[in-house]
Amino acid sequence: MTLRYRIYIGQTKDFIESYFSSLETDKRLVKYITMVMMAHVKTLMNHGVIPKDHGEEILRKLKEVFQSNGELLYKWIEKSNTLYEDAFEALEAYLHDVSDADAGYVAIGRSRNDHIAAVLRLYIRDNIVNILYKLLEVREALLHKATEFRSIIIPFFTHEQIAQCGSASIFFMSYEYTLANLWKMLYQGLDLLKENPLGSGAASGSLVNIDRDFIGNLLCLDNTAIPPYYATGSRLFVLHYLNMLSLIMLELSRFAEDMIFLNSLIPNALNPPVEHVATSSIMPHKRNLVTMEIVRANASKVCGLSFESQSIYKGLPYGYNLDFQEINNAIMQSLEVVQKTLEIVKDFINGLNINENVIQKYIEDKPCWSSDLVEYIALTNGRPAREVYLSLARLFKECSAIDSKCVSKLLSSLNLSHVDIWNIVKNKPIEINIKKILEDAWTRLERDRNIVKSISLFIEKCTSALLS
Amino acid sequence: MTLRYRIYIGQTKDFIESYFSSLETDKRLVKYITMVMMAHVKTLMNHGVIPKDHGEEILRKLKEVFQSNGELLYKWIEKSNTLYEDAFEALEAYLHDVSDADAGYVAIGRSRNDHIAAVLRLYIRDNIVNILYKLLEVREALLHKATEFRSIIIPFFTHEQIAQCGSASIFFMSYEYTLANLWKMLYQGLDLLKENPLGSGAASGSLVNIDRDFIGNLLCLDNTAIPPYYATGSRLFVLHYLNMLSLIMLELSRFAEDMIFLNSLIPNALNPPVEHVATSSIMPHKRNLVTMEIVRANASKVCGLSFESQSIYKGLPYGYNLDFQEINNAIMQSLEVVQKTLEIVKDFINGLNINENVIQKYIEDKPCWSSDLVEYIALTNGRPAREVYLSLARLFKECSAIDSKCVSKLLSSLNLSHVDIWNIVKNKPIEINIKKILEDAWTRLERDRNIVKSISLFIEKCTSALLS
Amino acid sequence: MTLRYRIYIGQTKDFIESYFSSLETDKRLVKYITMVMMAHVKTLMNHGVIPKDHGEEILRKLKEVFQSNGELLYKWIEKSNTLYEDAFEALEAYLHDVSDADAGYVAIGRSRNDHIAAVLRLYIRDNIVNILYKLLEVREALLHKATEFRSIIIPFFTHEQIAQCGSASIFFMSYEYTLANLWKMLYQGLDLLKENPLGSGAASGSLVNIDRDFIGNLLCLDNTAIPPYYATGSRLFVLHYLNMLSLIMLELSRFAEDMIFLNSLIPNALNPPVEHVATSSIMPHKRNLVTMEIVRANASKVCGLSFESQSIYKGLPYGYNLDFQEINNAIMQSLEVVQKTLEIVKDFINGLNINENVIQKYIEDKPCWSSDLVEYIALTNGRPAREVYLSLARLFKECSAIDSKCVSKLLSSLNLSHVDIWNIVKNKPIEINIKKILEDAWTRLERDRNIVKSISLFIEKCTSALLS
Amino acid sequence: MTLRYRIYIGQTKDFIESYFSSLETDKRLVKYITMVMMAHVKTLMNHGVIPKDHGEEILRKLKEVFQSNGELLYKWIEKSNTLYEDAFEALEAYLHDVSDADAGYVAIGRSRNDHIAAVLRLYIRDNIVNILYKLLEVREALLHKATEFRSIIIPFFTHEQIAQCGSASIFFMSYEYTLANLWKMLYQGLDLLKENPLGSGAASGSLVNIDRDFIGNLLCLDNTAIPPYYATGSRLFVLHYLNMLSLIMLELSRFAEDMIFLNSLIPNALNPPVEHVATSSIMPHKRNLVTMEIVRANASKVCGLSFESQSIYKGLPYGYNLDFQEINNAIMQSLEVVQKTLEIVKDFINGLNINENVIQKYIEDKPCWSSDLVEYIALTNGRPAREVYLSLARLFKECSAIDSKCVSKLLSSLNLSHVDIWNIVKNKPIEINIKKILEDAWTRLERDRNIVKSISLFIEKCTSALLS
Repeated sequence: MTLRYRIYIGQTKDFIESYFSSLETDKRLVKYITMVMMAHVKTLMNHGVIPKDHGEEILRKLKEVFQSNGELLYKWIEKSNTLYEDAFEALEAYLHDVSDADAGYVAIGRSRNDHIAAVLRLYIRDNIVNILYKLLEVREALLHKATEFRSIIIPFFTHEQIAQCGSASIFFMSYEYTLANLWKMLYQGLDLLKENPLGSGAASGSLVNIDRDFIGNLLCLDNTAIPPYYATGSRLFVLHYLNMLSLIMLELSRFAEDMIFLNSLIPNALNPPVEHVATSSIMPHKRNLVTMEIVRANASKVCGLSFESQSIYKGLPYGYNLDFQEINNAIMQSLEVVQKTLEIVKDFINGLNINENVIQKYIEDKPCWSSDLVEYIALTNGRPAREVYLSLARLFKECSAIDSKCVSKLLSSLNLSHVDIWNIVKNKPIEINIKKILEDAWTRLERDRNIVKSISLFIEKCTSALLS
Repeated sequence: MTLRYRIYIGQTKDFIESYFSSLETDKRLVKYITMVMMAHVKTLMNHGVIPKDHGEEILRKLKEVFQSNGELLYKWIEKSNTLYEDAFEALEAYLHDVSDADAGYVAIGRSRNDHIAAVLRLYIRDNIVNILYKLLEVREALLHKATEFRSIIIPFFTHEQIAQCGSASIFFMSYEYTLANLWKMLYQGLDLLKENPLGSGAASGSLVNIDRDFIGNLLCLDNTAIPPYYATGSRLFVLHYLNMLSLIMLELSRFAEDMIFLNSLIPNALNPPVEHVATSSIMPHKRNLVTMEIVRANASKVCGLSFESQSIYKGLPYGYNLDFQEINNAIMQSLEVVQKTLEIVKDFINGLNINENVIQKYIEDKPCWSSDLVEYIALTNGRPAREVYLSLARLFKECSAIDSKCVSKLLSSLNLSHVDIWNIVKNKPIEINIKKILEDAWTRLERDRNIVKSISLFIEKCTSALLS
Repeated sequence: MTLRYRIYIGQTKDFIESYFSSLETDKRLVKYITMVMMAHVKTLMNHGVIPKDHGEEILRKLKEVFQSNGELLYKWIEKSNTLYEDAFEALEAYLHDVSDADAGYVAIGRSRNDHIAAVLRLYIRDNIVNILYKLLEVREALLHKATEFRSIIIPFFTHEQIAQCGSASIFFMSYEYTLANLWKMLYQGLDLLKENPLGSGAASGSLVNIDRDFIGNLLCLDNTAIPPYYATGSRLFVLHYLNMLSLIMLELSRFAEDMIFLNSLIPNALNPPVEHVATSSIMPHKRNLVTMEIVRANASKVCGLSFESQSIYKGLPYGYNLDFQEINNAIMQSLEVVQKTLEIVKDFINGLNINENVIQKYIEDKPCWSSDLVEYIALTNGRPAREVYLSLARLFKECSAIDSKCVSKLLSSLNLSHVDIWNIVKNKPIEINIKKILEDAWTRLERDRNIVKSISLFIEKCTSALLS
Repeated sequence: MTLRYRIYIGQTKDFIESYFSSLETDKRLVKYITMVMMAHVKTLMNHGVIPKDHGEEILRKLKEVFQSNGELLYKWIEKSNTLYEDAFEALEAYLHDVSDADAGYVAIGRSRNDHIAAVLRLYIRDNIVNILYKLLEVREALLHKATEFRSIIIPFFTHEQIAQCGSASIFFMSYEYTLANLWKMLYQGLDLLKENPLGSGAASGSLVNIDRDFIGNLLCLDNTAIPPYYATGSRLFVLHYLNMLSLIMLELSRFAEDMIFLNSLIPNALNPPVEHVATSSIMPHKRNLVTMEIVRANASKVCGLSFESQSIYKGLPYGYNLDFQEINNAIMQSLEVVQKTLEIVKDFINGLNINENVIQKYIEDKPCWSSDLVEYIALTNGRPAREVYLSLARLFKECSAIDSKCVSKLLSSLNLSHVDIWNIVKNKPIEINIKKILEDAWTRLERDRNIVKSISLFIEKCTSALLS
């Protein structure tokens, strides 16, 4: 007979069980479900709650499932032709079926509620560590471009209109700086993922006093006790990461929008890598930045998943509710989208080129130096800047349109040449400070790289101990 | 050589193309993509733009794909080992590969932008018609329960606290009424799905003046010309349906919450069908309404998909943008979740029973008739209701708690028995009007059933014409 | 002594009552609260439940409040120095205080729950009718521009890159068409606003059998009975309008984005009305389309309010919950933002000019006719369009960049001049069909104008009856 | 003549300027706008860019505005009858009007874009520090209740159904623990608020090399240079705080839901403070937890504001866009709602009482110890827990309903009394561990209190320096 918790409740129907079963999405979690179960069994053996021989046999079976990355379990499920509620129930039924030991011994000192709370932390932690690595790669790509294109003067925008001009470095450094901030936030959040919910029972504890030091060491979790209703009934740690993943995507979306916008505004100025470009099925001249469009759409997707999760969470009283399952789904999708998007953006940036001549020609007749000119005249003559500003404003007003004719007329009325004005732009303090900002950024990148490496190492050590 | 639009742009890489390709989600659309292409080919043959023999051969191939529900195409794709941008490109490449005719003739008078706008309308229409049917079934189930449980007095809530008592019919009729409203909204929206975007080119028209009467008849679309930038660049019709699907789910979620709440509040009062109940892995006494919890979570999911789509749409200038692909994904998921949820809710309602005795016992000592009593005394004595209200308020105040002792004391001070008070409740005008409201509801249900049947018939006739 | 419902519960503290009181936002509703109360009193007088002399005196006082648009009430509140829960409680207390009649008679056959459900419908209806008028004005402005700029060829975009060229009419007609669709949706929703929730008690009815014909006529509401739990516990009608208001704003936001984008892309092509433009405090050359930026932001605001309301609604079991108050707030803000935005957009469109020469110069060297050329060659030579497409794709590929040199070379290789190509564009079927589409649009506009006028008239007649 | 930046653009109309002006919401920022301007003026004087006498006179005027908390400015605006774009423009115009010095000197080395980025950081920081204090108060109130109610056994829920029983401490400690986590997140985010955007110009720098050490010290901001496009074009710091404020509200909403749910489930078990309770206008028995309902609704509001802001941000290319104004509005509203809600929740918890007898009676016949019993038997007899679980499951199954009869029968079949079973519950490890968890919580509270006090002190010192 197959183990089902519902055995005395009565059977259900397939279309109903498939509506509430999480078996499908649990595939991504099964590795961690097995790890937590192994740590649980080892701990119970230590407590003398599971007899040694039973425990060792069960551990062998669990290790096999772990090493097959869950495939062993899911093949067995398929064969058994049963729709389990989730991978927890399936795993226990599997142990009952395949093991000579009495798998019934594992069903103590635990509930699905404390176990899933641990499993999700391990799953998210592994994914976040991976994202920390990928973010480093994108940041590195941005810093390389900031270095490579330092001497190219590009336009900067406010209100989606040309505002000032400056080194292309500023553009790439700005995104790197944003991502460095996000990197730090993700890293700081790891504390939430080290919380140890095990031993909390379903809501208010178990009769087994799980050895938190022992089980914590096997899973790289804290040994501090946390209130069991929080441990099982909270998804704060998931919502916090969903929020941060949204923020990452929003910044990448703005980058994508910048690429698309510039590509339209100054044709041929960007040479985006050809692999990221597609054309139209009817307009052979089209060069669409299709990956960047999908980055934008995916940003909305990740925000939507975060909103969905908050909306689920909001309506619930405390304690575990099955509604949480859908939050699991949301974080899984988010983590996947973010990782794929970071790969895409990295590849795009690495392959990006800027056509300096085209940009130079484009800004030639655009007065993106008007604020610099105001400051230059004010500083040079000791005049109040507002006075200078208004006099220039009047000159612009006198033009019928702000175009090359207007710019030339204005400059000559001030006895300035185009060369003069671009010299002013190129010698602004920021152009000189870029070197320092870049150095700081590279240093921060190295520091962050060392941090994430040591986290990886720490986790690997726990996992070896668990598997030993 | 395989047809690719990007042939002169250059190749791409798999991880990049899989990031922006919609091939996977297009599986759900391929049937409609083929239908629109068949209508297109027939129209071009009519115009003499496609030579008759070429056209007929192409139609044969398209019909095969249609009849295999797209499988033929996707198997070919798998074999060809190419990641196409979408099913449109793949279908054209397929025709080039398998047909003796020159498939290149179909690439005129159309773009992917006008075709997808038609395809989505057909896809959504079929799904909405299905939802209209399912909603009728849920409404019918609710009306049956409203009839069956008419004599059972149940508590009604405001502020999540017991407010008034009344016939259980009121509960079920209220949900039926809501769903009838939503039914009507879905139906009214069908006008948007009849708009005919074909012949709009990519944005501002084609050189071929597509015969809108002819192509409209084949696909059950209008023959009126619509502005081509709207036709290709708008997703208003999708967003509107996403919104309405959210509203449906919100109402079903409130129903689910009612079931879960009542099951907790008055143990054993509801006898929900056992297939919808699951238990705990550690607490054998638990009876969790798991399907209802997932209904709640899915409501947030559908709202999240709507938010995601609005967030995508909001950031875009007019015209087709690839970001729209992710909106396709959202509406597909929404339509699927709503259909599954309606099945679940229907099955739940059909199997639902109410234990009258348990409820009667529960409300016995709860003054859910306090407003009725105020009105009764006021009407009987011609006294201002506020005055009566305040005198009762004082009596409640004098109790140490609002419990059975308080209720008995209060009633006896008014010379009223429990029997008296329940007679008042049972003889309220609403209890008498229920009959009329129910009759109206059944009539509306029949009318709506006839409406949707005639829509089905209409669509079937177009499809036969298309396939003939 | 001041009437407070909570008199026997005990007093509260100001910072607490101000947290849950809706008195401030009720200012917008007080007119409708008074109207519903007047209809209620008239109906009760008819039923003989309120003595005639008491009723007439109370009606006089209510009429005064109505005519002062609530100011009379709010001044009295300020003087009384009491924080009421809402305008309902305050109005009743006011009647007790200022009237010689016994205001206690009004507190029967009603609850705040059925009254607010009616009040909101009246409030929203008045605002929606106003929005229907404003939408007509915007649509008219768009049609005028579609007529005025019909001969100007402008670029159209897909993927935010130049795609095709065509008459500016197409642009303006597309937006008019969208808004006409939204107009119709708003109009169809009015059915929900005619539902008559009065007489439903707090949740499951009152002992007074309110004459629905009589009270319905006074307020232009239906006379059909609706299930009382729906009547008091549903906000479907609000959520549906919140959704539609979001859709309106999303379309206006895309228009705004188009204006900002074009203004950046083709400097001096648009001559937006100067009142909508602001400049920078440091860059005197800047011309920012500030109102259009706020339109975009407001679109997100209205979407946010809609999702807020869905999130509130989602978590609630059925029946009235005080959480609904915040939904009231959301719809009020939404309605206000939409009305202001429509005024802004109308003024912007009316003042908008297009500089034909600048645009002509801009598109001169952009191959926005590439799909037309493919079709032209295919049709002229009876060649498969895909074959022609690929040959042109190769020519574009051979250019180092897609610029004026490339375009000239390509055209001359085909023995076509610039004049030829623009003749092809200008003679596409759509350019000829524009006349018909425009005529239809004007006709629809007139029809819609007549519809909304008749609604206004209908409402005015009810209100006169109520006040008589 | 009044200073307006738009003087050479042309006038606007009131309804248009009021659509895009932020003057109204800037009232909350004006204090910080003045502070940043004072720091700016002091720095420019140091650089010799503003002549000493002009600078000192301007500082005097700014200090007056600061000391009036902006009132001086807004009264002047009202008198001048001009609708300024924002408080920045108004402040400059004010200085021009009221000062003998030439206020035009301040318009250098700055833009509104870098200034607002600093102003928002100062404004949010002050509010967050306040929230950190308020969170400490709520946490303290929770810990007091966790101590006070330690011996009361209450039910704990999963799936919104009774699951386990345990000390009330667990409930209060769980919420305290959550809020302690959120406290830490808010605190960690302060790094973003210390970033110094000043000197960044509008987008890519100014000709004045602002002394970052000097200006940083005056405003308690970092002295590190940050990329200027990030400095002016990013709102990451606002979005991050909006997210965290949402999370706080979601947890408070779940607490509110718990209170409302328990109040309904076990009448008279909670004695919520009477000030937080309201009654019905027609049902004198009603006791509605109205503040808790508004807490729930406000949670959705804050989430809505967060998603509004993300939706705004998502659509924008990099650089400052006026759309950001609406994000300012969102964070202001969020901060206000959170602060008010924390006051309400604190007051509610402080006044909360639990009626032990009522709860005891309620749980008496509910088998909320079923998992404990399984573990007890398994541990006592060395039997596999699953085996025990299934035998109990069968016993429950044999009852016709899970009620007091069932419970008594089950216990007696196991030779256990009610006293035995409650002894098992009361002696679970968690009940013993509570002491330790509570001690840790109090220690953490003290540590956090010291941290926030030192932040306050640090900010006060900078402000004194600025004003000296």
